[in-house]
Amino acid sequence: MNLNNLKFHQKLVPENYLKLALEAQKCKEIQVKELLEKRKLPDIGWPDELIEQVIQQLAALDNNNFEHKIGLGEREARIISKLVNRRNYGFGHGIGRSGDLLEAQPKAVGSTILAQLSNALVLDLMRLQGIKSVKCCFIVPMATGMTLTLCLLSLKKQRPTAKYVLWSRIDQKSCFKSITTAGLIPIIIDTIRRNEQSGLFTDLKKFEEKLLSINHEEILCIMSTTSCFGPRNCDDIINLAILSAKFNIPHVVNNAYGLQSTYLTHQLEQANNAGRLDLFIQSTDKNLMVPVGGAIVAGFQESSVHHVAQTYSGRASSSQSLDVLITLLSLGKIGYQNLVKERKTNFAYLQKQLEEFAEKYNCRIIKAKGNPISLALELKRLPTEEATKLGSMLFTRGISGTRIVTKACNKIVDGFEFIDWGSHENNLDCAYLTAAVSIGLQLSEIDAFIQKLQQCWQDIEKKTRK
Amino acid sequence: MNLNNLKFHQKLVPENYLKLALEAQKCKEIQVKELLEKRKLPDIGWPDELIEQVIQQLAALDNNNFEHKIGLGEREARIISKLVNRRNYGFGHGIGRSGDLLEAQPKAVGSTILAQLSNALVLDLMRLQGIKSVKCCFIVPMATGMTLTLCLLSLKKQRPTAKYVLWSRIDQKSCFKSITTAGLIPIIIDTIRRNEQSGLFTDLKKFEEKLLSINHEEILCIMSTTSCFGPRNCDDIINLAILSAKFNIPHVVNNAYGLQSTYLTHQLEQANNAGRLDLFIQSTDKNLMVPVGGAIVAGFQESSVHHVAQTYSGRASSSQSLDVLITLLSLGKIGYQNLVKERKTNFAYLQKQLEEFAEKYNCRIIKAKGNPISLALELKRLPTEEATKLGSMLFTRGISGTRIVTKACNKIVDGFEFIDWGSHENNLDCAYLTAAVSIGLQLSEIDAFIQKLQQCWQDIEKKTRK
Amino acid sequence: MNLNNLKFHQKLVPENYLKLALEAQKCKEIQVKELLEKRKLPDIGWPDELIEQVIQQLAALDNNNFEHKIGLGEREARIISKLVNRRNYGFGHGIGRSGDLLEAQPKAVGSTILAQLSNALVLDLMRLQGIKSVKCCFIVPMATGMTLTLCLLSLKKQRPTAKYVLWSRIDQKSCFKSITTAGLIPIIIDTIRRNEQSGLFTDLKKFEEKLLSINHEEILCIMSTTSCFGPRNCDDIINLAILSAKFNIPHVVNNAYGLQSTYLTHQLEQANNAGRLDLFIQSTDKNLMVPVGGAIVAGFQESSVHHVAQTYSGRASSSQSLDVLITLLSLGKIGYQNLVKERKTNFAYLQKQLEEFAEKYNCRIIKAKGNPISLALELKRLPTEEATKLGSMLFTRGISGTRIVTKACNKIVDGFEFIDWGSHENNLDCAYLTAAVSIGLQLSEIDAFIQKLQQCWQDIEKKTRK
Amino acid sequence: MNLNNLKFHQKLVPENYLKLALEAQKCKEIQVKELLEKRKLPDIGWPDELIEQVIQQLAALDNNNFEHKIGLGEREARIISKLVNRRNYGFGHGIGRSGDLLEAQPKAVGSTILAQLSNALVLDLMRLQGIKSVKCCFIVPMATGMTLTLCLLSLKKQRPTAKYVLWSRIDQKSCFKSITTAGLIPIIIDTIRRNEQSGLFTDLKKFEEKLLSINHEEILCIMSTTSCFGPRNCDDIINLAILSAKFNIPHVVNNAYGLQSTYLTHQLEQANNAGRLDLFIQSTDKNLMVPVGGAIVAGFQESSVHHVAQTYSGRASSSQSLDVLITLLSLGKIGYQNLVKERKTNFAYLQKQLEEFAEKYNCRIIKAKGNPISLALELKRLPTEEATKLGSMLFTRGISGTRIVTKACNKIVDGFEFIDWGSHENNLDCAYLTAAVSIGLQLSEIDAFIQKLQQCWQDIEKKTRK
Repeated sequence: MNLNNLKFHQKLVPENYLKLALEAQKCKEIQVKELLEKRKLPDIGWPDELIEQVIQQLAALDNNNFEHKIGLGEREARIISKLVNRRNYGFGHGIGRSGDLLEAQPKAVGSTILAQLSNALVLDLMRLQGIKSVKCCFIVPMATGMTLTLCLLSLKKQRPTAKYVLWSRIDQKSCFKSITTAGLIPIIIDTIRRNEQSGLFTDLKKFEEKLLSINHEEILCIMSTTSCFGPRNCDDIINLAILSAKFNIPHVVNNAYGLQSTYLTHQLEQANNAGRLDLFIQSTDKNLMVPVGGAIVAGFQESSVHHVAQTYSGRASSSQSLDVLITLLSLGKIGYQNLVKERKTNFAYLQKQLEEFAEKYNCRIIKAKGNPISLALELKRLPTEEATKLGSMLFTRGISGTRIVTKACNKIVDGFEFIDWGSHENNLDCAYLTAAVSIGLQLSEIDAFIQKLQQCWQDIEKKTRK
Repeated sequence: MNLNNLKFHQKLVPENYLKLALEAQKCKEIQVKELLEKRKLPDIGWPDELIEQVIQQLAALDNNNFEHKIGLGEREARIISKLVNRRNYGFGHGIGRSGDLLEAQPKAVGSTILAQLSNALVLDLMRLQGIKSVKCCFIVPMATGMTLTLCLLSLKKQRPTAKYVLWSRIDQKSCFKSITTAGLIPIIIDTIRRNEQSGLFTDLKKFEEKLLSINHEEILCIMSTTSCFGPRNCDDIINLAILSAKFNIPHVVNNAYGLQSTYLTHQLEQANNAGRLDLFIQSTDKNLMVPVGGAIVAGFQESSVHHVAQTYSGRASSSQSLDVLITLLSLGKIGYQNLVKERKTNFAYLQKQLEEFAEKYNCRIIKAKGNPISLALELKRLPTEEATKLGSMLFTRGISGTRIVTKACNKIVDGFEFIDWGSHENNLDCAYLTAAVSIGLQLSEIDAFIQKLQQCWQDIEKKTRK
Repeated sequence: MNLNNLKFHQKLVPENYLKLALEAQKCKEIQVKELLEKRKLPDIGWPDELIEQVIQQLAALDNNNFEHKIGLGEREARIISKLVNRRNYGFGHGIGRSGDLLEAQPKAVGSTILAQLSNALVLDLMRLQGIKSVKCCFIVPMATGMTLTLCLLSLKKQRPTAKYVLWSRIDQKSCFKSITTAGLIPIIIDTIRRNEQSGLFTDLKKFEEKLLSINHEEILCIMSTTSCFGPRNCDDIINLAILSAKFNIPHVVNNAYGLQSTYLTHQLEQANNAGRLDLFIQSTDKNLMVPVGGAIVAGFQESSVHHVAQTYSGRASSSQSLDVLITLLSLGKIGYQNLVKERKTNFAYLQKQLEEFAEKYNCRIIKAKGNPISLALELKRLPTEEATKLGSMLFTRGISGTRIVTKACNKIVDGFEFIDWGSHENNLDCAYLTAAVSIGLQLSEIDAFIQKLQQCWQDIEKKTRK
Repeated sequence: MNLNNLKFHQKLVPENYLKLALEAQKCKEIQVKELLEKRKLPDIGWPDELIEQVIQQLAALDNNNFEHKIGLGEREARIISKLVNRRNYGFGHGIGRSGDLLEAQPKAVGSTILAQLSNALVLDLMRLQGIKSVKCCFIVPMATGMTLTLCLLSLKKQRPTAKYVLWSRIDQKSCFKSITTAGLIPIIIDTIRRNEQSGLFTDLKKFEEKLLSINHEEILCIMSTTSCFGPRNCDDIINLAILSAKFNIPHVVNNAYGLQSTYLTHQLEQANNAGRLDLFIQSTDKNLMVPVGGAIVAGFQESSVHHVAQTYSGRASSSQSLDVLITLLSLGKIGYQNLVKERKTNFAYLQKQLEEFAEKYNCRIIKAKGNPISLALELKRLPTEEATKLGSMLFTRGISGTRIVTKACNKIVDGFEFIDWGSHENNLDCAYLTAAVSIGLQLSEIDAFIQKLQQCWQDIEKKTRK
């Protein structure tokens, strides 16, 4: 519907007034036109009203929103609750078709465009963030864990005899479970320290040993991780990519919240240049500030990404694509880049604050240069019990997201035992606390955190002394 | 927040007026109290305002909505777009934890309640629909196809040596792909005819043969289907359950849109009574009239259902649970049951209309008594080409959901060839058209369909005659 | 903005799919086109989505919603709260200009169209309801009372020496106050009874006496009322119009909730045919089911209506026009007419129920044939105190809108004393209860009312007996 | 409804998680409690979610939103359109009762609180802005013009023999029309210049002359204006107040957009201290950034303000109160004060920019020290025609709000002739342009304005030269 082409009854408004007002609409029309023709992020974010207008017009293209729909099938996207319909803007058909998550639905033209457009804008964003060579990506309406599983299942279809995944240890449950859920067997390669001060690194030697000792046809892939809790560093994905290429084994990277950091995105770009990197996966909520529930599968070759989309069985929710599309249009390039810069500054600020804290209270920050997001504060002077207590004190005071890692906390996940669970290694020295600076964190939160950390610390010290 | 406990300044309103108004709120409070204490569907649907109030108060329990949140983690459910925040009511944390889709999240109390409450109401609804013995169920934020895959992966974890799925053929892609995606090998058992008039049935004999001939440890499960396109009947899940029990092989039922039909739900109940039925899966969109994107995993034993939840790696979107919760509260028991009854009446009406049509135009309805949702109209007199054309004519005239199945349309899916794809059998006689009466279909749509069918038919006949 | 004219990137959706979807939008476009060209009510109500789309596109035509607005004035319709902006769809400029409520605003083209379009649709509705000769009308964003004042002030500008309003008594405060607020002096002409059974009528003789005895230049107008509490009848506006014409005195009719009744609208039409009727005023909330706050000024000559619009000083809220526009588009002709019919049936039903009640409890309904909306039930057997008590019992039981009129309840309003306030006459016989059947009342409310009335009645009788 | 008092089923969420989440709600509850008990502006603005929660709970107190409402009256606030209901949060009863705009409605407890609370917060804001002695105020759902009329009608009720309003000329139509609409006769007292450089001032001498020469009983009031277009200054309301007191004549001040300027609010406070100031009226849209449609009547004595409320006949829209309430809660004290400060800075910025412009293009700014909002730029070198053209050029370039005042533009309004309409005086020297810096203006708008002004100026100069 377009007011421009209409003849307004003269009694409604004088023609010269109307003319000026219609002209003022043109810049909006150009913005929409460019979006649909070029499929690129706008430089400047759009106002909510314009975003909603586009969304509503897209939704109107789905059959369930046609005025004279006649649906004789088992799934016609009838939405019975007005509230549900409103919050979904009338989108009901989901995305993809039974054979392929990227296929167009004839009776859901709007949903199809919604999905493809979101994917295109995310691709643009990835390049903006420094992954210049990325070729293809798509949003999967499953969080990172299940999306990793999907990627592994896609590889499994192509390498049916493979059963092992060479996995650089990171003590995050869903990442590990993504392997076992796919019916595969993880070969866990613990991270190692180079020295006391620099955090944990990928054990490249062990990787090479395993690649040499196991039948290649039985290895599904190497699985590495970029973004992680300090003091673990980003895996050495460049050298892992070189190994991948050398042994001709697929390489999957869990880039969970790495898209927000240009340090990590450049690692991905360089890894691809240096060797082999088949697929990298990132969360939509952690990088794009939308609700949990989506992930992005990306790669440097169309075919490998498409194969993942074709592995997905059935249609899927369009809710995640919708949240991403709205958010990206609302931020624009400049908006996102500002968030990225702000995060970097905030990280430096937290580091400085924690260093001051460490000096004052006689503890230590571990400088893991390959981790631009999460910091670890060693709690050498606190016994395990007190360290644990510190964690729960912080939580009851409204601080979420920090973690306390303590010694001798072993754990069995899906039959595999992890010594010192949480530490990504087998010989944890002493307890530590991690804190992360993610996109969207406010400076005032850091100040409040440091203040509460001091209070809790002092309380614990007081009690310990008695 | 509660106005009841507040002391209003006397200048705002006279006390006696206020007292009466506050008393009138009590029935709402009782409804909410009962919901949260008993976790049962209300008899009568709630007004939208009350639903939104409850949803908003639940959302306020999540940490990201606390007034003084301090988030130092990599995922704090920051939602940057106001539009996205509004449409998600502020829910950002998703559901589940990395280890288990049913686990509570300490920093997302509202989301946790949202998920558990939705699951409880769906359980209540299932019992209401006649599956009295169902013990446990939960909403998965993936559509039916991927959810079937998840169930198979869950069984695979328990039966690591198994690799085959005995599958009663149904020509619906995502159902079939759910097997290959899980890295498993389907053993396809074509449906058979008993006579010309009664549609297609499960080939029980072939199932038994396979169960006898294949090593049990290599069989993951039997997979059958209830709701399907006519003239295929609901699988004989009662006898399949008996076979399952006899051979001690898991039995998974794809009940995609079967929850809406009491005929099909009673099949499930009886199958469980007679033999073994481990898991049955249904779509939320097709049965509950919400947007595509969710499925319900249910079972007659807590442990088997829980195992599926534990197989899911990572957290997941709460969007589907939210849509289901809003819809169920909005409908109430009576509302849903009315929809179910109406659907049944509509089905009878379509059947009658099509029978009249068949008589008039000299064709035939195939009476598949075990299919209470979808009807097949044989197009004996139309050559394949014309039949195909009829399908596209209907679609361009705004009719969606009908399917034309024609002879000699073979298809290869994931390396498996299907003769006469769409027909669920290997010796399709002649083309036919299917039409389904789903929950939510309006009577007026049936009339419009019949009218347009006649027009198209006449057009085709005219051209054929020339 | 219009998707039709855009070239979608081919990767977004296949062209043939898109083409069908865009074609399906045409019927909506035609509806909008017809609305803006013909300014008539649609036959069938529009879906909410389409209404919102049109509203949003109109709002986009106001300067404050331009993307590059530069406002250097004292009023630029900046709306600072997102919530306020959203609920007003971005409309901020109000309607009218300082000189005239019907004038177009150059910097608020959308608001101007909104106002004019609402007025046009209301005019169409009035004709539909039987006031065929109505020439002009407009929505005033003030309720009926102040709008009556505005009409009187408009007449006063034209008849500066006039100071009296000949007013057929109706005991409704805001109607009476509309005269004193305008700085005018009411001459109160009590209604009279013809016989015990037929209610209260206009005292035409007294009107004529006054018209003969007072200097014409000092009489501003005759003011009469159509819709009223039973057992008062609609004023005899036909004969008052004849007197008006004869004495060349303006005639203003308070048609507060009369637009919903075709009986009353036909009185208006006939009055105009028979004599003089300058302006008639009706409430938007009571007739169109929108929130309180608007009224409609209408007349049979453009000039008299325009003069009222020109009397209004300054701009005014567009909120009422917006509510009316949304409501009328949502109902359509058929929707409104159905409500009108239903009301009529409901009235007959209430009458029947009350007659049965009257028979059972030995009291009496007063048959005022000239009142199609409100009924009076005589409470002969209840002493004043008990009658009053009955009223408050009903209210505390959730019944609103009924009134109890008792004897000897005199009242002074703005210095004028009314004997038996509430009864429209000076010699009230006995207490009575009134109940009205308005547009939108549900049949179930009538049943609940009768049931509660019986309970209360029995309770009172019980106590009285003791 | 309150989650705190409920017993959640244990399966919904672990008790310890719930406890922490419920505790986090307390600060919100305290905020609401304080608001309703103290009726003061919060220091810090509330988040939208909390505002909506309170609004919804208030709306639930109105009878039309009761679950078991039985409405037998002619006005039961039935809102038939879901869209209309949603945008009004279910408020339908309006505010006030037929006798008094400040009276409580028994069947609209929520609306009553809404109105009274908004009034209380506005009172608090006025004091915050420096009018320490203000006693009472209320929001009228009519814009400034009609509200001035209402105030005059209220005075007229108290002084029935009065007919003249002594009015310090300001060339703004609705202000002048407010007098004639009330049926009163304006006595126009032109503003005067003290010298060329300082703008226009109140002609106090002429006021005193009139007060001495006209029978006091025939003078209704003095009417003065604070906020106005430059180079007119704020009226000398302090000395007018002294005259008012001396002659015992009411004094009404049109403070249209003066609440946003602490300079003007202090004039009001001092005028009251020095003499007599009965009522002052200000616009809600211009001072509080809500849509057009409301005004605030305020005074230093309860009785005079109450009398205005009692003069209003009938109920009125609650829409304006709702917009104001939402906006004030959203801003909080600090938010509003920041806007006020920012406006002051912006004004200084515009002045500086225009002075630079004036120097460059050889024209002049008139320094009216008593006008803190609007500036005048003399266009001495431009002939009338070119000046007019400049105005329209600016408008077509998206600049709204500036005015061009030219010589010899006489106008007749309601029979009164104004020489040099727009200039507030009878001997305009040369054309000038006015520009105002209102609350909410962005600095970037000033820059854009100056840039476009230069372009237009140069264009005109170029053409003039040829």
